[in-house]
Amino acid sequence: MSSEPPGSVTVRGSVLVGAADVTTAEVFRAIDPATGAALEPAFSAAGPAEVEAACALAEAAFPHVSEAPPEARARCLEAVADGLAELGAPLVERAVAETGLPRARLGGERARTVGQLRLLADLARSGAWIRATIDPAQHKRQPLPRPDLRRRHVAIGPVAVFGASNVPLAFSVAGGDTASALAAGCPVVVKGHPAHPGTGEMVARAVRAAVAASGLHAGAFSYLPGPSSALAGALVADPRIKAVAFTGSRAGGLALTRVAAGRSEPIPVYAEMSAVNPVVLLPGALRARSASLAAGFVRSLTLGAGPFCTEPGLLVGLAGSDLDAFAEAAGAAIRASVPHATLTADIRDRFERAVAAMAARPGVTVAARGASAGPGGAPACLLRAEAGRVLADPGLADAMFGPAALLVAAADMAEIARVVDALGGQLTATLHLDRADEHLAAGLVPLLARKAGRVLANGWPTGVEVAPAMVRGGPFPATSDGRSSAVGPLAIERFLRPVCYQDLPDALLPPPLRPDNPWQLARRIDGALAPQPGR
Amino acid sequence: MSSEPPGSVTVRGSVLVGAADVTTAEVFRAIDPATGAALEPAFSAAGPAEVEAACALAEAAFPHVSEAPPEARARCLEAVADGLAELGAPLVERAVAETGLPRARLGGERARTVGQLRLLADLARSGAWIRATIDPAQHKRQPLPRPDLRRRHVAIGPVAVFGASNVPLAFSVAGGDTASALAAGCPVVVKGHPAHPGTGEMVARAVRAAVAASGLHAGAFSYLPGPSSALAGALVADPRIKAVAFTGSRAGGLALTRVAAGRSEPIPVYAEMSAVNPVVLLPGALRARSASLAAGFVRSLTLGAGPFCTEPGLLVGLAGSDLDAFAEAAGAAIRASVPHATLTADIRDRFERAVAAMAARPGVTVAARGASAGPGGAPACLLRAEAGRVLADPGLADAMFGPAALLVAAADMAEIARVVDALGGQLTATLHLDRADEHLAAGLVPLLARKAGRVLANGWPTGVEVAPAMVRGGPFPATSDGRSSAVGPLAIERFLRPVCYQDLPDALLPPPLRPDNPWQLARRIDGALAPQPGR
Repeated sequence: MSSEPPGSVTVRGSVLVGAADVTTAEVFRAIDPATGAALEPAFSAAGPAEVEAACALAEAAFPHVSEAPPEARARCLEAVADGLAELGAPLVERAVAETGLPRARLGGERARTVGQLRLLADLARSGAWIRATIDPAQHKRQPLPRPDLRRRHVAIGPVAVFGASNVPLAFSVAGGDTASALAAGCPVVVKGHPAHPGTGEMVARAVRAAVAASGLHAGAFSYLPGPSSALAGALVADPRIKAVAFTGSRAGGLALTRVAAGRSEPIPVYAEMSAVNPVVLLPGALRARSASLAAGFVRSLTLGAGPFCTEPGLLVGLAGSDLDAFAEAAGAAIRASVPHATLTADIRDRFERAVAAMAARPGVTVAARGASAGPGGAPACLLRAEAGRVLADPGLADAMFGPAALLVAAADMAEIARVVDALGGQLTATLHLDRADEHLAAGLVPLLARKAGRVLANGWPTGVEVAPAMVRGGPFPATSDGRSSAVGPLAIERFLRPVCYQDLPDALLPPPLRPDNPWQLARRIDGALAPQPGR
Repeated sequence: MSSEPPGSVTVRGSVLVGAADVTTAEVFRAIDPATGAALEPAFSAAGPAEVEAACALAEAAFPHVSEAPPEARARCLEAVADGLAELGAPLVERAVAETGLPRARLGGERARTVGQLRLLADLARSGAWIRATIDPAQHKRQPLPRPDLRRRHVAIGPVAVFGASNVPLAFSVAGGDTASALAAGCPVVVKGHPAHPGTGEMVARAVRAAVAASGLHAGAFSYLPGPSSALAGALVADPRIKAVAFTGSRAGGLALTRVAAGRSEPIPVYAEMSAVNPVVLLPGALRARSASLAAGFVRSLTLGAGPFCTEPGLLVGLAGSDLDAFAEAAGAAIRASVPHATLTADIRDRFERAVAAMAARPGVTVAARGASAGPGGAPACLLRAEAGRVLADPGLADAMFGPAALLVAAADMAEIARVVDALGGQLTATLHLDRADEHLAAGLVPLLARKAGRVLANGWPTGVEVAPAMVRGGPFPATSDGRSSAVGPLAIERFLRPVCYQDLPDALLPPPLRPDNPWQLARRIDGALAPQPGR
């Protein structure tokens, strides 16, 4: 049973190895999660031969891409952005068919992806990431002369990118990982997610066209779709790959981390995995506005079809009538919520099993459950437990990767702090407070900042602003590398390494470090920032 | 057999756990490599109980140290620098006795260590590492308002530091790793190297006094000397340790990397291991000055007692009479060289075994060997092979960790490039060239930059300038993390992670992000750098 999806005109089911379309013997199909129907066309699954070819091309491209001027990188990323925009409605329709995500959400996600590509294009063009630093020679220094030292940051090497099932545009083929790796000058090999291969291929063709249009080496980008974890493992194990970026489940991320740890050459793995994104409801806020807090919470929890990486999955507040009022209002909203189709049957099954297992743990009660609506949907759920249970059973703080949350009732503020302290690393941590709560919050903020990459007050964590100050990351197990951010200008730093040039003749220096500064960079000279010429 | 060493007045043989002196049942002694004699006193070896106590203290100290104002960190590092200077001649004498390194070299190393501490104090004080970034709210933005976003970099957590046997001051207890971790706000637990425990303890006492004098939490620094690798493993495996910095052998570094990979929480490991530091001798340079090149090479190779991490261990040039003249002059200088005492009998034995094994490989000849001078010395050695042998047997490019080098004769420039391309990651890579060689060098520089953290022209790689543009690092296996530098201002970035604060009330923001900017930082506001107030 299969049906003709929208946008199929640009979807051929190919593996893209550099400029070449490759077809393979093993095929797979996308499934419409709303109907369970297989979608056309059949997709070639990439295998070891395609990993080999793509990595060889990426390595061949590296010397060229890594030395491409900022302007060429910026033009490439802008061309990808233009290409995504030009794909128009068919891209969104294909993504709707493959993921079950709402049309409006996907339209917004495309706009955000385009914006992120333009932000990284601007960053690439600025050359700020090169961090050009010059310490001129001091020939007469005593007791020894100082040599001429010049430093730049340069691309680390070919990067393997693994997109998320649940964010098929912003964290997939042309998402932040691909964009920041290309901005850094790293060739990219994308392992295409098997849940949205048509969406992936449409975007991949846009990236490939942008690479060609901007004059970059064709090996700068390859796209290897496929359902097998062996494909993922082979890509991470390939010695030509020098960094990995992944967004997805903890199991998936840890599996790739293990493959990387087994390499003879260790490489950075930036795996954004999962988080329960704790929310602390302070007593003044609960007293003043339990109903509006409940409405905001359920809106964030059930946003789109979920699962979102930043969904609020654990809330903690002081036991009492205000918390009960919050629970009642949230429960009512959850019972009234209409489940969206979930991305894949597999994700829905895992989510339902996780909720059932959580509900069956001692001391956990089901406060509210949403209606079930057809085979594709996963009903939202609110569970409840005492803080003492959570402290005794750390599994209660695991993310369920879907629209379910645990409301935790604590006896006092010290117990709230203990619950927070017992959590692992998080992408976000949120406080809801009133003015009168500030003295209680003062002790919690440093604790939350130690746990999470982003600390929010009086908001909800879903929705990640793309701005210079944003951090999309956090300590393990939210990510495998808490030193980094997957969003914003910090994202590019994941794919760079420093190189120092000592006493090189001018003609042998790379452009960013030459005396004539052909890339017109702002450079740090003898410790002071010299302004960008001509700007 | 033991003798009273200089400086013993301040050496008690204790483990330092925060402010406490601890003695243990298991003891070990330092050995004078020049005489083989055991030195007084006996040193308590730290064990699991001391690891536990030091890590618990470090964790307790973390909230305080990580939020200490820049000024307090700077004062602490300056007090360490003052303390090292005040230790005067006894520190150098103790280090001479324990390492066999020349007095002048150790005096210079102390000066460099003091300079590095002051440079990192200045950096800590500047607050530049905080990278304070503020994107003010845009309440009226369409379609959605932008929240107020503020980002800072903050300490990653307690850091374990492992010093090198061969650089007992600059890369040991108060070396660049400890200094940059403290500057970042990370408590430090040093695993003291068993080859120089007295030197280590003298320095450790200076660090502890500086921590106390600057008002930092006593858990900010502990010192755990001991000879067992189980001690090292227990420290790296401790879940409270959030990063590891190591300088030493590849075997040691890889062992720690494996322990770290076995943790449930992955942490960054900055292991600086070994390098052969290739040198390319281009034909014009060889023709013009083979004798002075040979003299410079042998001076760099036999600097101090070796082994130096940046010693030139592999040279490659075009086969012919100029290369032969270089080999002859270098051989004469090596035969005339007087071996210094080597650091430890173990290091000397490993070096001599490595040289013997290398000399026994097919196609390798011994071009020259230095005189043997007493039991402590390791004679320098120059080996020679054809490039084809090196390409066929990658083991020929392994570092011997001592004053021995392999001179490689290549048939043409393409073969030189192939030899370079076949090398693993390096700390340094050097070109010797004349004006007429620049066209040959142009193709090699990008290749060398891909292999090494520092590329030099017409110099020798030993001696690492402490300057903003310096990079002390390089791709694997020179280090386990080529994204970093162990020297210069980049060193601090190894121990930081970003945190974003969204819509926090002013009173709950950490000082660097408050509207009143109490730390007077230069901050990036809405994308533009705002100048530092009052400076």
